[in-house]
Amino acid sequence: MDYYFKAAVEEAKKGLKEGGIPIGSVLVHKNKIIGKGHNQRIQKASAILHAEMSALENAGRQPASVYKESTLYTTLSPCPMCSGAVLLYGILHVVIGENKTFMGEEALLASRGVQIEVLQDETCVSLMKDFIKNNPSLWNEDIGV
Amino acid sequence: MDYYFKAAVEEAKKGLKEGGIPIGSVLVHKNKIIGKGHNQRIQKASAILHAEMSALENAGRQPASVYKESTLYTTLSPCPMCSGAVLLYGILHVVIGENKTFMGEEALLASRGVQIEVLQDETCVSLMKDFIKNNPSLWNEDIGV
Repeated sequence: MDYYFKAAVEEAKKGLKEGGIPIGSVLVHKNKIIGKGHNQRIQKASAILHAEMSALENAGRQPASVYKESTLYTTLSPCPMCSGAVLLYGILHVVIGENKTFMGEEALLASRGVQIEVLQDETCVSLMKDFIKNNPSLWNEDIGV
Repeated sequence: MDYYFKAAVEEAKKGLKEGGIPIGSVLVHKNKIIGKGHNQRIQKASAILHAEMSALENAGRQPASVYKESTLYTTLSPCPMCSGAVLLYGILHVVIGENKTFMGEEALLASRGVQIEVLQDETCVSLMKDFIKNNPSLWNEDIGV
């Protein structure tokens, strides 16, 4: 497994251990992880700290040039909010663990020129399938359903 | 001036007094402000706490039904990230102070059925014009330019 993608999966697992929604993300700039995070809805009672948002926040304030040279890794297809953050900062490359359990705004991202790679990683699929099965209402809350 | 919109403008002014970017927002559910906030890029070194995101975070975890009955007031046209958050949570009504100094993803929101009202409020325009004139690099950082 790719080193950076593996770091995103580790974040997802960390979230699960904390009792949270198992989605993880890392932001990589020039072969270095500059931000990492996982979904914090439950842990921080947060409506905005999805995994990708946590990774962006963890990276801190960056100039536009850094985002444009960065790749965002996420274990799950990014929702409209996280996809919007990708567009805001002009991130041009997004690596996605899977889109079988949730399909985010991949079409919108692609239409704006973002290069998308979907791995359909079985570990990511299992993490989400199990979580959704055991916590359907929490999951629905996270995606505004 | 509308009571709720005025509350969003007050948030923008509060942000400016703190040395921040003067953009404010409130989330209103059934005639009650359930969340309010302002841009926190400078104050909290945050890459994700735009005004609308701050208001959503301040509102805390809410069921989907609440968002769908809510109106988001913001002093400035919402960027892709904040517009994405509107889409994620199915907020159907957005009142915007102005879109003269920055045009966000209003067309995307409208294409997804969000009702948009743009007030072109002169106070909001002045707040942003002055801020951008005095802090062009900070403003560019906030919109990923």
